[in-house]
Amino acid sequence: MDQPDHSPDPRIADLGFARVDVDRAARTGDPEVVYGAGKTPEQVVTILRTLHERHPERAVLATRLSEEALALVGGTLPDAGIDPVARAVTLGPLPTPRGTVAVVSAGTSDAPVAAEAALTVRVHGAGVDRIDDVGVAGLHRLLGVQDRLAAADCLVVVAGMEGALPSVVGGLTGVPLVAVPTSVGYGASLGGVAALLAMLNSCAPGVTVVNIDNGYGAGVHAARVARNAAPRPGAS
Amino acid sequence: MDQPDHSPDPRIADLGFARVDVDRAARTGDPEVVYGAGKTPEQVVTILRTLHERHPERAVLATRLSEEALALVGGTLPDAGIDPVARAVTLGPLPTPRGTVAVVSAGTSDAPVAAEAALTVRVHGAGVDRIDDVGVAGLHRLLGVQDRLAAADCLVVVAGMEGALPSVVGGLTGVPLVAVPTSVGYGASLGGVAALLAMLNSCAPGVTVVNIDNGYGAGVHAARVARNAAPRPGAS
Amino acid sequence: MDQPDHSPDPRIADLGFARVDVDRAARTGDPEVVYGAGKTPEQVVTILRTLHERHPERAVLATRLSEEALALVGGTLPDAGIDPVARAVTLGPLPTPRGTVAVVSAGTSDAPVAAEAALTVRVHGAGVDRIDDVGVAGLHRLLGVQDRLAAADCLVVVAGMEGALPSVVGGLTGVPLVAVPTSVGYGASLGGVAALLAMLNSCAPGVTVVNIDNGYGAGVHAARVARNAAPRPGAS
Amino acid sequence: MDQPDHSPDPRIADLGFARVDVDRAARTGDPEVVYGAGKTPEQVVTILRTLHERHPERAVLATRLSEEALALVGGTLPDAGIDPVARAVTLGPLPTPRGTVAVVSAGTSDAPVAAEAALTVRVHGAGVDRIDDVGVAGLHRLLGVQDRLAAADCLVVVAGMEGALPSVVGGLTGVPLVAVPTSVGYGASLGGVAALLAMLNSCAPGVTVVNIDNGYGAGVHAARVARNAAPRPGAS
Amino acid sequence: MDQPDHSPDPRIADLGFARVDVDRAARTGDPEVVYGAGKTPEQVVTILRTLHERHPERAVLATRLSEEALALVGGTLPDAGIDPVARAVTLGPLPTPRGTVAVVSAGTSDAPVAAEAALTVRVHGAGVDRIDDVGVAGLHRLLGVQDRLAAADCLVVVAGMEGALPSVVGGLTGVPLVAVPTSVGYGASLGGVAALLAMLNSCAPGVTVVNIDNGYGAGVHAARVARNAAPRPGAS
Amino acid sequence: MDQPDHSPDPRIADLGFARVDVDRAARTGDPEVVYGAGKTPEQVVTILRTLHERHPERAVLATRLSEEALALVGGTLPDAGIDPVARAVTLGPLPTPRGTVAVVSAGTSDAPVAAEAALTVRVHGAGVDRIDDVGVAGLHRLLGVQDRLAAADCLVVVAGMEGALPSVVGGLTGVPLVAVPTSVGYGASLGGVAALLAMLNSCAPGVTVVNIDNGYGAGVHAARVARNAAPRPGAS
Amino acid sequence: MDQPDHSPDPRIADLGFARVDVDRAARTGDPEVVYGAGKTPEQVVTILRTLHERHPERAVLATRLSEEALALVGGTLPDAGIDPVARAVTLGPLPTPRGTVAVVSAGTSDAPVAAEAALTVRVHGAGVDRIDDVGVAGLHRLLGVQDRLAAADCLVVVAGMEGALPSVVGGLTGVPLVAVPTSVGYGASLGGVAALLAMLNSCAPGVTVVNIDNGYGAGVHAARVARNAAPRPGAS
Amino acid sequence: MDQPDHSPDPRIADLGFARVDVDRAARTGDPEVVYGAGKTPEQVVTILRTLHERHPERAVLATRLSEEALALVGGTLPDAGIDPVARAVTLGPLPTPRGTVAVVSAGTSDAPVAAEAALTVRVHGAGVDRIDDVGVAGLHRLLGVQDRLAAADCLVVVAGMEGALPSVVGGLTGVPLVAVPTSVGYGASLGGVAALLAMLNSCAPGVTVVNIDNGYGAGVHAARVARNAAPRPGAS
Repeated sequence: MDQPDHSPDPRIADLGFARVDVDRAARTGDPEVVYGAGKTPEQVVTILRTLHERHPERAVLATRLSEEALALVGGTLPDAGIDPVARAVTLGPLPTPRGTVAVVSAGTSDAPVAAEAALTVRVHGAGVDRIDDVGVAGLHRLLGVQDRLAAADCLVVVAGMEGALPSVVGGLTGVPLVAVPTSVGYGASLGGVAALLAMLNSCAPGVTVVNIDNGYGAGVHAARVARNAAPRPGAS
Repeated sequence: MDQPDHSPDPRIADLGFARVDVDRAARTGDPEVVYGAGKTPEQVVTILRTLHERHPERAVLATRLSEEALALVGGTLPDAGIDPVARAVTLGPLPTPRGTVAVVSAGTSDAPVAAEAALTVRVHGAGVDRIDDVGVAGLHRLLGVQDRLAAADCLVVVAGMEGALPSVVGGLTGVPLVAVPTSVGYGASLGGVAALLAMLNSCAPGVTVVNIDNGYGAGVHAARVARNAAPRPGAS
Repeated sequence: MDQPDHSPDPRIADLGFARVDVDRAARTGDPEVVYGAGKTPEQVVTILRTLHERHPERAVLATRLSEEALALVGGTLPDAGIDPVARAVTLGPLPTPRGTVAVVSAGTSDAPVAAEAALTVRVHGAGVDRIDDVGVAGLHRLLGVQDRLAAADCLVVVAGMEGALPSVVGGLTGVPLVAVPTSVGYGASLGGVAALLAMLNSCAPGVTVVNIDNGYGAGVHAARVARNAAPRPGAS
Repeated sequence: MDQPDHSPDPRIADLGFARVDVDRAARTGDPEVVYGAGKTPEQVVTILRTLHERHPERAVLATRLSEEALALVGGTLPDAGIDPVARAVTLGPLPTPRGTVAVVSAGTSDAPVAAEAALTVRVHGAGVDRIDDVGVAGLHRLLGVQDRLAAADCLVVVAGMEGALPSVVGGLTGVPLVAVPTSVGYGASLGGVAALLAMLNSCAPGVTVVNIDNGYGAGVHAARVARNAAPRPGAS
Repeated sequence: MDQPDHSPDPRIADLGFARVDVDRAARTGDPEVVYGAGKTPEQVVTILRTLHERHPERAVLATRLSEEALALVGGTLPDAGIDPVARAVTLGPLPTPRGTVAVVSAGTSDAPVAAEAALTVRVHGAGVDRIDDVGVAGLHRLLGVQDRLAAADCLVVVAGMEGALPSVVGGLTGVPLVAVPTSVGYGASLGGVAALLAMLNSCAPGVTVVNIDNGYGAGVHAARVARNAAPRPGAS
Repeated sequence: MDQPDHSPDPRIADLGFARVDVDRAARTGDPEVVYGAGKTPEQVVTILRTLHERHPERAVLATRLSEEALALVGGTLPDAGIDPVARAVTLGPLPTPRGTVAVVSAGTSDAPVAAEAALTVRVHGAGVDRIDDVGVAGLHRLLGVQDRLAAADCLVVVAGMEGALPSVVGGLTGVPLVAVPTSVGYGASLGGVAALLAMLNSCAPGVTVVNIDNGYGAGVHAARVARNAAPRPGAS
Repeated sequence: MDQPDHSPDPRIADLGFARVDVDRAARTGDPEVVYGAGKTPEQVVTILRTLHERHPERAVLATRLSEEALALVGGTLPDAGIDPVARAVTLGPLPTPRGTVAVVSAGTSDAPVAAEAALTVRVHGAGVDRIDDVGVAGLHRLLGVQDRLAAADCLVVVAGMEGALPSVVGGLTGVPLVAVPTSVGYGASLGGVAALLAMLNSCAPGVTVVNIDNGYGAGVHAARVARNAAPRPGAS
Repeated sequence: MDQPDHSPDPRIADLGFARVDVDRAARTGDPEVVYGAGKTPEQVVTILRTLHERHPERAVLATRLSEEALALVGGTLPDAGIDPVARAVTLGPLPTPRGTVAVVSAGTSDAPVAAEAALTVRVHGAGVDRIDDVGVAGLHRLLGVQDRLAAADCLVVVAGMEGALPSVVGGLTGVPLVAVPTSVGYGASLGGVAALLAMLNSCAPGVTVVNIDNGYGAGVHAARVARNAAPRPGAS
């Protein structure tokens, strides 16, 4: 019924069920990424394999994978690196890290988003320093890691519920900071909107924000900042 | 046109433009209070005078007064105590304070709400310890007053923007805490809704919340808690 | 890939899947609490056992447990106290109650939240007086318990739908009052937001509010108020 | 530029700046009504005069008038009845009342909306019983007028802030009830949305609701109910 | 742990899992009603049986029943009347109808709400005239039933999506009208909020509104209006 | 401080306070348009004059003008056509109309938006048939103009409050229809959001919607449709 | 219990579970359409068969079908055309296409909505040109199809997430454009509301919008525009 | 009445009406900043003068100044640099710029926010490249500046209405990007919320977002990124 759209384009890999942009690295310097939500395990494996064959020399990242997709990748792509907490996988060699991103999280329930951010940072070419369970209701632990915060080239700060952690961290240091609200909470957390609004209204200057649970987006931004940062003493 | 409603009730002072409940003290132990918003300066003065004449032995409080009302009260009721920051006045002797409420605020812009809370606490029978400008983006000042927080019988914590202060204070002490969101902010603060949501989702246990800018309501609750608290060392 | 975060901290029990703050009692005077949502039954049992072993002389509380977690606790921790309505358990001896909190609820559907509040109050050191099914559409029952309301040191008032009960109770007495909106309702109740907004706008002075369905938070606040209250005649 | 729309229609009075439906009485049994918001004082006077001349034997109602419009009507239409609280006027003889509507309001600030409802009821052919200042934070006054509530053919219940009054009144009687939320309040009252949501979620069965501050709409519904009600003992 | 609440009250039937108000008929003239949402089939049957035994001479209504509850009622209470579309049942003799309520609905998907409203009207003592599938996108059917609309003592108008039907019906007649928004729709219907807002803003005067999908509440109001209406020619 | 941005571009007229796209006609076939909100009267006149000088052979349109801007245009550009209801002006010859757009509005208060739509249609090259005051609460007038609706090549339907008119019109004819919600209303109209949501959920197929009060946008779309429509009998 | 509604109407096919308007083609020129959501597979088949028998000479469309309904249609109506991506079927001969609608979509996840729009366009009498995967984050592909955009008589532009595509397309051409927001996204996409708001605020003039995921509604509008468009060179 | 809070702190300058943090530079490397909203012109001048005297060797920034404050600063602080578009001033020498931030804006109305961002960047130590009027409805201008986008160390992208510009820019380059939604728009722009949501849902990876109209916050983040970036060819 429709006019077919057959324009062949070397920058696009047409897999039938999806048309994958295989040219992003040239345009932005970033790796290929597969957003797994809404894709079948078979589709995820096919896209990963296709992208890996196009560019075997660099890593491909797949995020938001179901249990089934993680299992199928594990069974069919033995070289893939599986991160079950992040619900993500990589295929191909990770780049040599340049600069450091500290990924800071408030509570245990924020771990999946923090893990997605951390893995994204690594795949996008920067190193990671994980600092977990430093929620604002127990300041002593956060105050104990101030030097690690100051040593980073960029910070990713992950928190749900009232989303206060970025404000407190942002008051302790002048390192560029990306805040990630999570959907952890209930009732008036409105699925993460409360944390999102809090972070957008942070009284600490320079806090920037991404979508709820978007560890990936924060990781991309932070890695771009860190890998371009001038070297300095103290950073890993 | 209407059937007149002439039922005389000794618990009500009918001023024509308003019917004032003069029986609240008997029912709840609290003083009479005039909510000044939407009332003319003349009406405020009349209500204050009427309530004062009924119960000259205890204080009356009027809140949310316009500049004009504050001026008229100052000119016509020389015994009134004027608090221009709180936009409130008292008439009649303040009660002897029992217990202490620490009123804690984040920034300069929160001062009117903190002042309303503090004056309300005093009129409702408790003492006040003011701790201002201890926003979360500068933790050192807050950490310097931990002993004053712990010495109070109840805390009122006032903050706008991201509303993070109650969570941090609530993690430092087990004193009962009432959080007051303020409308300080712009854009995604949504008139104080962002701070309100943050406080309702506080990860610090036991934080309770009142309406945006409602220093009065927080003061009433805190004074009731403090004036009934058992004496203990360290409290003023 | 990440830098490990191995800083040992005696105030934290690291269980691998969670890092539990075992120092809260020293800081706030409150017991240890496990928030069960999102944890497996095995994790709940492990955390309960660990916390109990650290401090066998005082109670641990676990809330928001699934049916499976309640069953596993019952089967493996025979000394635990199970509250199936509250979906919560305790392990270890409850403290001697000081002061009384009246937990008041509007309807049958509010029972789980009221039960969570009541159990939290007991674990946090105060006594409980339960007053159920006193919704505002049938005032006679509420008016029949006015003396019990007045005898309490703090009130927790639980209601869904239009959330009117705290306003009515708050007009009957001057006892400190914490209102808990519940998600009971449909359509324009917006998952409890209608009740939450109503309580925040209560015309009764001194009403404070917690998050939707947050019986735990209300219980913590109320117990702190009641256990510090000066003794008075009539309170249990 | 446009094609003129010259279709003459005897059911429409074309005043240039407005086309007034002069046929509503025939269709619905109700009087003509002028919604004054957004109209100049001169336009209000012109429409009132036109409608009155068409049907001098029955009343015309104009609502939502500015101070200027009220003054001009008073100066140019000496036979008009002016209600400054309701910000409304009538012109022409009021109908003989059939049945009674009790208009119940919570607080002094709700008076304009209650007055608009009451005047609308009278112009639409029913009698009015005004019951004011019976907010839920002082139940004794409300309980004192239960017989007047029960004697009415329909109830209009007006309240702002938490909007709890209709639920309490609706639990006391089975008379048909229309609830009117008002914009009285601040912060989380969201311009009356909190009261509106509360009334829509009332636990008292049979409560119906109109738009915020819509005393007129409630009055029309209530008058239609009351004027068609079968006579009964006790109703005025 | 708690103080038991053993106050026996003849107006309450204590079933353990619920305390049922068996006195509502005396207070409001309405029958007993069981709100089935959240209750087990066994609980529904027990409450129905208990209420029926207390007052075998009048009907009991149970609404919002699950498939399982409908089946259990059908199997264990052979005298019950089952309405599978309304998801409701009655037990005991229906009252003789006084007056007529026309229940008008826009589309096929609105049938469950319309059926709940119609059954509620009958149980509350009025007669019903059902007028279905008269949505505003096909005006000819609606215009064909104008005489039936005008003959009713009260109208219940049920519509989802844009909720326009009450405005059109309200322009055709002066009969008291209750509008019921339904959750029929998707996307920007926001679960029925779009229809709710539309009805609250109706340009037809006198339209009152109930909660989304609340056929029961509309039915109660309409039956109260209709059963008290003076008889007139043309009404059934 | 900044690097100047001096790239000269013939498609842009740089007026200092604004850079005007003078190339739109070539790209889209539409005239130049000045959005007057936020511009001073002097700026409006300058832009109008500049655009007119570039293309004296076709009309320029300026919308959303203040009273002051309308007066200054009238005083300084005697050839301009002023539409005070639409708060808009044109300068230069209007194009010969091709096809017809019927601009339909519900009430008197919707006139400014309808006038803006009508003027926009004319400037963009189509003819206009205005049909006003045909709100859904008075169907007889709307039913009387069905032939004019059917004769148009596109419909613009303007309504505030509940926004029901597009659904009713859309059920009467298959002509392409653009709905314009207006901000007419109060309370739960939420500044026009209620009408917007209603129109997005219209049960009449094929209704498309523009922003609140956006008569201009609707006019552009409708003119594009009408001027490209094949001629047919009955259209002007 | 109810008065039966037996008015026979030749324009309605009464199937018991639904009353189908079989007269729409005469009124609007459009085919019959079955909205499948909420209907059983058997009901869908019955309605399709009934409508087809009434008008075997033209196509019937059924949308929003479940997997089960698609399977049953495939098994029992061998002449039906099944579109599994659109989740829709047709029965009966498609009309000869007049004019062309370009259906443009941003990403792979938008395919179901784009497919529903495309099929609707064909059934409503216009031809389709599909242009997929031209999201704004990769402009090169979109810029490569500018001539196809300009050759269409109407555009349907489908996008989720930030909904930016219609603005970019609308800046490239003056062809009438209907934007369709999709529910693709998470967190702050609020189920498609973010894309909807973006499209309503498009800075490209003349963009009109339909409900979230409403490919059908956009298709109806676009087909009506295209099939009435005057022929021009370049359009298929 | 209150306990005075006299703790002298060298890191705080107590001006009576405000307590200014004069230690931020040591903690974060950033200059002192005065948020002018809600402050009198005299207060702004006093704070500027005080901060300048403490640290005459570096710049102070004051933002969100009223017309009156800008005038008073101009009249009393002759060395101040005034930016009337940004509504901001600086006092003291600007730092030598390191790295470059490109500040990109969509339309003329976005100029104040873009100017605030640009001035903030300079005061915080980076250089600025301004790129204005490159809205998505006219892609040609944006495509003409791709090399300037790619040469920057960080991008600040400012847009109102549908907020699409960051997505398009983010697809053209891999430079770190901060998006600033503005309150430019009306109706469904909801005061900038539409643009904010769009930017949070950007399909371009790595886009981070600040509060509506928060040019200052974006400038702080971007300057921190740029001044730490390693030098590279092409950057100014």
